[in-house]
Amino acid sequence: MSMQSIRGSVRNFGGLIAVAAIACMTAGRANAAPSESRVVSLEIRSESLAHSKIGTNPVRKLEVYLPAGYENSARRYPVIYYLPSPLDPFQEEFYLHTAKPLLDRATAAGEIGSVIFVAIDMATPLGCSWYLNSPVTGNWEDFMVQELVPYVDANFRTLRSRDSRGIAGNFMGAYGAIRFGMTHPEIFGSVYGLHPVGTGSGLLTMYSRPDWDLLANAKSLDDVKRDGFSTIFTSIYEAHLPNPEKPPLYIDLQAHRVGGELVVDAAATQRLRESFFLEAMIPRYAENLKSLRGLRFDWARNDGNQDHVYSNQAFTHKLNEYGIRHESEEYNGVGGGGNWGDDGRIYTEVLPFFQRELVFTPGS
Amino acid sequence: MSMQSIRGSVRNFGGLIAVAAIACMTAGRANAAPSESRVVSLEIRSESLAHSKIGTNPVRKLEVYLPAGYENSARRYPVIYYLPSPLDPFQEEFYLHTAKPLLDRATAAGEIGSVIFVAIDMATPLGCSWYLNSPVTGNWEDFMVQELVPYVDANFRTLRSRDSRGIAGNFMGAYGAIRFGMTHPEIFGSVYGLHPVGTGSGLLTMYSRPDWDLLANAKSLDDVKRDGFSTIFTSIYEAHLPNPEKPPLYIDLQAHRVGGELVVDAAATQRLRESFFLEAMIPRYAENLKSLRGLRFDWARNDGNQDHVYSNQAFTHKLNEYGIRHESEEYNGVGGGGNWGDDGRIYTEVLPFFQRELVFTPGS
Amino acid sequence: MSMQSIRGSVRNFGGLIAVAAIACMTAGRANAAPSESRVVSLEIRSESLAHSKIGTNPVRKLEVYLPAGYENSARRYPVIYYLPSPLDPFQEEFYLHTAKPLLDRATAAGEIGSVIFVAIDMATPLGCSWYLNSPVTGNWEDFMVQELVPYVDANFRTLRSRDSRGIAGNFMGAYGAIRFGMTHPEIFGSVYGLHPVGTGSGLLTMYSRPDWDLLANAKSLDDVKRDGFSTIFTSIYEAHLPNPEKPPLYIDLQAHRVGGELVVDAAATQRLRESFFLEAMIPRYAENLKSLRGLRFDWARNDGNQDHVYSNQAFTHKLNEYGIRHESEEYNGVGGGGNWGDDGRIYTEVLPFFQRELVFTPGS
Amino acid sequence: MSMQSIRGSVRNFGGLIAVAAIACMTAGRANAAPSESRVVSLEIRSESLAHSKIGTNPVRKLEVYLPAGYENSARRYPVIYYLPSPLDPFQEEFYLHTAKPLLDRATAAGEIGSVIFVAIDMATPLGCSWYLNSPVTGNWEDFMVQELVPYVDANFRTLRSRDSRGIAGNFMGAYGAIRFGMTHPEIFGSVYGLHPVGTGSGLLTMYSRPDWDLLANAKSLDDVKRDGFSTIFTSIYEAHLPNPEKPPLYIDLQAHRVGGELVVDAAATQRLRESFFLEAMIPRYAENLKSLRGLRFDWARNDGNQDHVYSNQAFTHKLNEYGIRHESEEYNGVGGGGNWGDDGRIYTEVLPFFQRELVFTPGS
Repeated sequence: MSMQSIRGSVRNFGGLIAVAAIACMTAGRANAAPSESRVVSLEIRSESLAHSKIGTNPVRKLEVYLPAGYENSARRYPVIYYLPSPLDPFQEEFYLHTAKPLLDRATAAGEIGSVIFVAIDMATPLGCSWYLNSPVTGNWEDFMVQELVPYVDANFRTLRSRDSRGIAGNFMGAYGAIRFGMTHPEIFGSVYGLHPVGTGSGLLTMYSRPDWDLLANAKSLDDVKRDGFSTIFTSIYEAHLPNPEKPPLYIDLQAHRVGGELVVDAAATQRLRESFFLEAMIPRYAENLKSLRGLRFDWARNDGNQDHVYSNQAFTHKLNEYGIRHESEEYNGVGGGGNWGDDGRIYTEVLPFFQRELVFTPGS
Repeated sequence: MSMQSIRGSVRNFGGLIAVAAIACMTAGRANAAPSESRVVSLEIRSESLAHSKIGTNPVRKLEVYLPAGYENSARRYPVIYYLPSPLDPFQEEFYLHTAKPLLDRATAAGEIGSVIFVAIDMATPLGCSWYLNSPVTGNWEDFMVQELVPYVDANFRTLRSRDSRGIAGNFMGAYGAIRFGMTHPEIFGSVYGLHPVGTGSGLLTMYSRPDWDLLANAKSLDDVKRDGFSTIFTSIYEAHLPNPEKPPLYIDLQAHRVGGELVVDAAATQRLRESFFLEAMIPRYAENLKSLRGLRFDWARNDGNQDHVYSNQAFTHKLNEYGIRHESEEYNGVGGGGNWGDDGRIYTEVLPFFQRELVFTPGS
Repeated sequence: MSMQSIRGSVRNFGGLIAVAAIACMTAGRANAAPSESRVVSLEIRSESLAHSKIGTNPVRKLEVYLPAGYENSARRYPVIYYLPSPLDPFQEEFYLHTAKPLLDRATAAGEIGSVIFVAIDMATPLGCSWYLNSPVTGNWEDFMVQELVPYVDANFRTLRSRDSRGIAGNFMGAYGAIRFGMTHPEIFGSVYGLHPVGTGSGLLTMYSRPDWDLLANAKSLDDVKRDGFSTIFTSIYEAHLPNPEKPPLYIDLQAHRVGGELVVDAAATQRLRESFFLEAMIPRYAENLKSLRGLRFDWARNDGNQDHVYSNQAFTHKLNEYGIRHESEEYNGVGGGGNWGDDGRIYTEVLPFFQRELVFTPGS
Repeated sequence: MSMQSIRGSVRNFGGLIAVAAIACMTAGRANAAPSESRVVSLEIRSESLAHSKIGTNPVRKLEVYLPAGYENSARRYPVIYYLPSPLDPFQEEFYLHTAKPLLDRATAAGEIGSVIFVAIDMATPLGCSWYLNSPVTGNWEDFMVQELVPYVDANFRTLRSRDSRGIAGNFMGAYGAIRFGMTHPEIFGSVYGLHPVGTGSGLLTMYSRPDWDLLANAKSLDDVKRDGFSTIFTSIYEAHLPNPEKPPLYIDLQAHRVGGELVVDAAATQRLRESFFLEAMIPRYAENLKSLRGLRFDWARNDGNQDHVYSNQAFTHKLNEYGIRHESEEYNGVGGGGNWGDDGRIYTEVLPFFQRELVFTPGS
């Protein structure tokens, strides 16, 4: 992996040099007033994503918020990794003009101590990577664990311990945050998921969502994009039922039509559920989950897709069944938007959560 | 296995002789008006239940309803096996005075063709056997499949095919009926469960139900009977987390107290769920379930224990996820009682279901 | 009111003459084999619907199924009125080729006694009349009670008593059937609703459904048809928040935008709910509901619009709160289609219900 | 009304004198370090409660927390009124040893500004007053509005405006807090309900809860105490279906047995619902609710009585239907306990809510 380019305020440098530049920019300011907070826009090239079947871009964007005082101190900081919804565009402007002022305000008000905040773009050509290794979409888990986190730790003054490393995400990104908490609690010690999806079965069956004729007859990935649910479900199948031998979608089909009837493949359904649903992963990762310092998620009660509400309710019930301590709040809202507003849940819930759960000082 | 004694109208005979007696009682009536329907009370001794750790009685009662015309014909009949709730007493009077007239009336009205109806007592000292083999409670699955059904087929003029064999049950018995449909579709071709329990997780955690101090300190099985939920859950653990080396309860504990805290054993929880919940069994038995001629269950919406409603809703959703055709109705009622009333669900739902699903003639 | 024309097998006659013709067609066949069943297609002109603001057609179609034997007997028959979903086209072909064979088969099998079945088209230009009097859409309640039922009783050999008169409907038509059971139990003694809507609040708010900018700026009724939910909700407002002084939609608005904010009119919301929701009508009509011989409704669990499921659950709970005896079943299905299939709920549920609840003989 | 006695640190004084004493105790400390916080235990005699039919004690206890600095300043403070669950004993010790340190800690940490906190005992002989005027239990609404609040304003240095007056409560007390917010927004500008009950219908009918034979045959109030639900429901009926002419319970019965059947009085049910359920009150008080500065409530998902969960879900849906802005969170918990713990919802939710919603300075 190498850092490809640095956009934003520190552009036009090659990898390591660029980072050195970041580290040096503050030289000589040690006694000055605390430096202002900044957002650094970067791109890194991932080896783990270099061999996908579907043309995943191995160059990934990240936005790094450095708190006020970072540049004229030698202090190390905890880090919050943030996985946005891959359905939203990943834009530097957002982190500069919305996230930065909110983080500044929260820090000033004492809602959270000084913290580095790293947003990373993990979208695939069809939308969501689902944050795991797949021969079709790329090795996203490896990218996160073996490349991104080491890169951040190497290039910024972080507290290099799970106790000081949190992960949060929104929608599909919340799925990713909880998944990484399950699979890598040695890296991420605290987890917050905002309105996660993919936690479990909904009220309607999965196989009722895609257009099976469209999938069966697709000549290219682009063909499936004609239908929203077909797109999302193909991204799910690429991650959880991948088949590198079957172009153009490179997936096993969970169902197919025989005459006018849809026949569901029970074995594929079981593989899909075991791989996909966070609920189904609980038994395998129960001890990991119990080891977390903090686990919290929430969801909006009035989501137009009530499958999300139903599955989150089932997910929290099952976590309780396994004796896994966690917080789970269903709030009055319709989902989407709002999280980053003045009274949004980032400010009122997520940052106070990490204030409680992260360790802000070395060696503890 | 041997038939121990015959109570009711044909008492005091030894095994095979008694059965011969049943067969001969109708001699000479061939040209007379159709014989009246009858209920025969029997006891059979089971080898499969002879070696339990908890004193399960290997002599089991059964009540056999023979339809009008049975005795003066040579015809063979389909059979409905019926598993009552083991929490209710198993009483000959009930089958004589309630079940018999209802079956007579339904047959006369054409709601169902002539059918043999066999009720069997599968209660254990703590209540429910949960209808599977356990080193602690006895081998109930073997009893059903290897002893009871062959016995009935050997001693009554049955149609000896899964197409002509149905199974129904109530409450825990409905659990048993569906479970046998899952595990032995080669024997039972159609299944009806009345208000099943144990289909899956409820709203409250399982481990919150038993009194763990009572279980940890019990000196005998009788000790746990001081608390209703502890009794039921010990019966569950005897079936699904059996440990023949651990008297007096012979179970592994799903949870235990450490100081004031309850610690849940995630591995035991997983074993328990995989063995116990019908929902968790679906992946392993999906093809069996798909092979059934008919699968139907229902439950009362206003059950005081809403866990039952919640888990049945989740069960039907998951059956749908696996593409398993079935009917599942939530009706306006509080559960318990009523099934055998004039407008009860046995008359209005169960018998019409078997009328549709059973084969009433040989060789088809 | 006058019968406008008779289509189908008895075409081209004027009003009363045509009816006389129907009555006479069977003359001289009294001793022959029972006549075959028939479907008669009619149109009647309604005075109650002649003065709407939105161009409701006062000429209404009806399809009348006369059972086998009707024409060569003097017998009187019970009547089932049927309100189809107004979102489906009202077609003679359907009643000839789908409803008639199903009713024939059910009668032959004894699922129901011989009965007259009357389907009536109550659609408005925007879809649903909601079956009540409105200065905007017409006086649909009066049409039903003062015109249609008297017309049928005058022109066919019906049993003219609520005990022998049932009403059923599908979707919005099920709303209508239950509503008429509430408001006119002296006319309809038994009621069956198939997947009713409009029984109460859903999970999402009503005001979140219409496009308020579209409604505020509509220049004609046709404008709102560009959006499905706006169309349905305008039909609701025309029935329940009518305002004849406000062309072109003739409704009071439940909400309006002020700046970017939607302001909900609480008083209009209350008027709307009290008029629209069957749930809200229960207190005013509790004694009427208790007086019904039979009340039953059902709904499909997996309706893509879970608001319908939620509100039907709330409706049955509230009926129970008022001690109103009824049946309410939530079944495994996705709604729509299927009701009129071989194993559909018309055959398996609706007709057996009326077989139990209707009186088939005079004077009882 | 007069203050009857002062317990705790300022005992043994008569009414007005005692209050003067409180006011004077801080004399001469003005320049000293900020005084420590204190809890003052008081009793006041209510005229509004002096004429009940059931022996309500008109002398009511209250516990008043005065923040650090109160005694050596002339500053005025906002007030949070607190209604505990009337099922818990009302104990000075609790407010001294649990509430006081928590309020101290939250104030010191900046979770909330300095505030006066007033807990009041509103229990009746059967448990709950339901916080309204009743000829049977006393005029609790008048007591609160005409006596308690004026008394506190007269005897402590409060900010005498709804903007600076909040009300919170737990369980039945949460019902009271929300009810007072509905009926008296001119007095209480912000409202927080912790796990409210009585917001609306549950899954089970109300009439299924009491023992109607016990109620029909009771010779005294004490008789109904033999059954928990009968006690609670008699308290509900005394508040909402009072009948001063019918000793010994002084209630109209919502249902009664005729033969073996329970007959529900629909008119009484309607009166009961309209008076009791917060949900039913929304239409009448929608504008009041919209005028509140803040409205928030929450409930524990895993309450053993799922009626509470169901009705709170319905309540928030209906508030949304009327366009009433509010927060409503369903959290992972079993209800009861915990609210006052270190991480309990008083500390993490209630106090931050009032920090946002209360005005802490005069004249704004």
